[in-house]
Amino acid sequence: MFLAGTDREAAVELDRSDPLRGFRDRFLFADDDVIYLDGNSLGRLPTDALARLDEVARDGWGTRLIRAWNEGWLQLPLRLGDRLGESLLGAAPGQVAVADSTTVCFYKLASAALAGRPDRTEIITDRDNFPTDRYVLEALAAQRGLTIQWISADPVTGPGPDHVAALLGPKTALVSLSHVAYRSAFVLDMPEITRLAHDAGALTLWDLCHSAGVLPVALDESGVDLAVGCTYKYLNGGPGAPAFLYVRAEHQAQLQQPIWGWLGTREPFEMVQGYQPADGIAAMLSGTPPVLALTAVSAGAELVIEAGVSAIREKAIALTEFAIALADEWLDSLGVTIGSPRDGAIRGAHVALVHPDARRLCQLLIDDSVIVDFRPPDAIRLGLSPLTTSFTDVWDGLRRLRHLIETRL
Amino acid sequence: MFLAGTDREAAVELDRSDPLRGFRDRFLFADDDVIYLDGNSLGRLPTDALARLDEVARDGWGTRLIRAWNEGWLQLPLRLGDRLGESLLGAAPGQVAVADSTTVCFYKLASAALAGRPDRTEIITDRDNFPTDRYVLEALAAQRGLTIQWISADPVTGPGPDHVAALLGPKTALVSLSHVAYRSAFVLDMPEITRLAHDAGALTLWDLCHSAGVLPVALDESGVDLAVGCTYKYLNGGPGAPAFLYVRAEHQAQLQQPIWGWLGTREPFEMVQGYQPADGIAAMLSGTPPVLALTAVSAGAELVIEAGVSAIREKAIALTEFAIALADEWLDSLGVTIGSPRDGAIRGAHVALVHPDARRLCQLLIDDSVIVDFRPPDAIRLGLSPLTTSFTDVWDGLRRLRHLIETRL
Repeated sequence: MFLAGTDREAAVELDRSDPLRGFRDRFLFADDDVIYLDGNSLGRLPTDALARLDEVARDGWGTRLIRAWNEGWLQLPLRLGDRLGESLLGAAPGQVAVADSTTVCFYKLASAALAGRPDRTEIITDRDNFPTDRYVLEALAAQRGLTIQWISADPVTGPGPDHVAALLGPKTALVSLSHVAYRSAFVLDMPEITRLAHDAGALTLWDLCHSAGVLPVALDESGVDLAVGCTYKYLNGGPGAPAFLYVRAEHQAQLQQPIWGWLGTREPFEMVQGYQPADGIAAMLSGTPPVLALTAVSAGAELVIEAGVSAIREKAIALTEFAIALADEWLDSLGVTIGSPRDGAIRGAHVALVHPDARRLCQLLIDDSVIVDFRPPDAIRLGLSPLTTSFTDVWDGLRRLRHLIETRL
Repeated sequence: MFLAGTDREAAVELDRSDPLRGFRDRFLFADDDVIYLDGNSLGRLPTDALARLDEVARDGWGTRLIRAWNEGWLQLPLRLGDRLGESLLGAAPGQVAVADSTTVCFYKLASAALAGRPDRTEIITDRDNFPTDRYVLEALAAQRGLTIQWISADPVTGPGPDHVAALLGPKTALVSLSHVAYRSAFVLDMPEITRLAHDAGALTLWDLCHSAGVLPVALDESGVDLAVGCTYKYLNGGPGAPAFLYVRAEHQAQLQQPIWGWLGTREPFEMVQGYQPADGIAAMLSGTPPVLALTAVSAGAELVIEAGVSAIREKAIALTEFAIALADEWLDSLGVTIGSPRDGAIRGAHVALVHPDARRLCQLLIDDSVIVDFRPPDAIRLGLSPLTTSFTDVWDGLRRLRHLIETRL
């Protein structure tokens, strides 16, 4: 699709005809020397977030004070959850909440899914799944005497439904995978894997950290039981922003999360004896909602919603395809291989470039103001967040990478 | 100590001679009509927090971007923890972390304390303990087949060491209480109760939500094993700000918290197979630190540290004593009784005024811009945060309460 990458004008032209180009002006670009190719690790700062944070701090915290809890703050986790659900996750209202960290949300849902079925003692997940997911599953397995069935797949082509099918059985309690692999960007077949799990009587818990806001997600339609995701990547919610969790409506009456807190009860301020979980998704909450952090998430997510996921997805495919074309042309002979799918349909919005000296190269790139992520053991990961990454960024960044390999290794 | 409260000039004079009076100027007072007597539910907004939030958003998130993680952000939970520990909690470095909500922190520590001692099946807590603490203990009891031994004490005079001693035994795993009762403000005898628990071979988990930043706390010296606390009350950290947790150094190698996340491992960015907890207090972390929220906590806590807890404590005793004197003079004949200790030495920084129509009175007060909290079944709770509450606030607020009872009930 793309012609030779030797001509920077081609990148400039792609930016010129990019329907999303105007969105860059909605983010802070304070340092023009930086080429930021890490929007899937920390999304850029929306200028709206600055204004909204100041407003909520002054008008809410500073002025309305405690009254603000009853003027909207207490509803923030579910209201924002519904907004993400309907606009980005394919979830009807009442199934998504924004709260806690991804790790804590994941723990709550995995724990809930594993309770009350003593005959089902197995969890299926992937050796290449994101560490925090693996660690939480290891914790629950250790605490409850369960077994993890590990998938070992080529991360560029899997795990696929076959890998899951090979491990599924009458003892499987839970299949937990990432929708988009954090290193390779491989897009898993969420609907088909979910169907297979259901056929075996198991539940599914999907991690949407690398798909929320950048890939169409259809939780309800795909039959997904449980999901979590992060808001500080493609949703631009800020460093360490709270996560979201999804519990399919039909499971909400049965599944009980383990961290019984006052904000998850029917009437928190009645302070009754005995935990009485709220109806619906509210029972997944525990502590007091982090209002400032939720405000920033809302500002970031609204930009994604305004742009629309299908336009974002289209640009993500183009950006990653452009990066791969440049890498093929410039870096293949320098020992760099592509660690991501070449088929855009099964590739998320990042690209892994594999090189034995990737760790050192990432440091050299960052020293040269090209911000990327190193992912062990050997990947330079480029996160090409469509609202803030230009084709010229990709061109310039890979040009510098070529120069560094040629001159510094 | 205080003379008749009929003369407002007495309150004005107390404010004039208040050594902490200058601190009010460090907070936003946007609405002069509001009398805010709820600083123990949500501490006021420090103007420093506004500036620091904007700075961290622009310079860190917006400009340094992902590089900021290695330029200090990753250390925030423990650095801020150490700062709170040394300045406010009587804890040597390496024992405090700031993370998650109070509920999640409490869950982590209670869960850790209850693991691995199958012969100890009992938890001691208080019927009047804060709901989220009770609910988390109920969850853990239900999940692990443990029994809760409930203390039922007069909340103005207990629970005391005798109440705990009466329930302690060879089966006691954990004694978990609040340092200061959330309704009555009764200060529990933390050192003595901890000593009794240890004599019985049990661990202690203290909730410091209503003491951190307003009462001298000596965790190390008191022998406390575990503690959690909130930063959005007297530490003025903002709505839903993250909590802190304390794990005594000598327990850190043995106690394992249940939510194994990547940020609690030795080398999170090595993303290894198999959870390898970090050494020390870092193993209590799970997810990515909430940077914006931690920034606000730091701004709020620094004001408390600057003022000094002993000066704050002194003013808290004076404010609450003044409130009680006014209530005695004005409200006793109107059916209001004091639901807090009269001895300042065992009273925190809030006062409960008990009246059968407390719920309605709280609403009337709030409608009249006197912000208080209703605490079921019958308490009007006045939180008198010493850095931001004046004696005149107390005088004016109680004057209006008298007027409301006289005219509206």
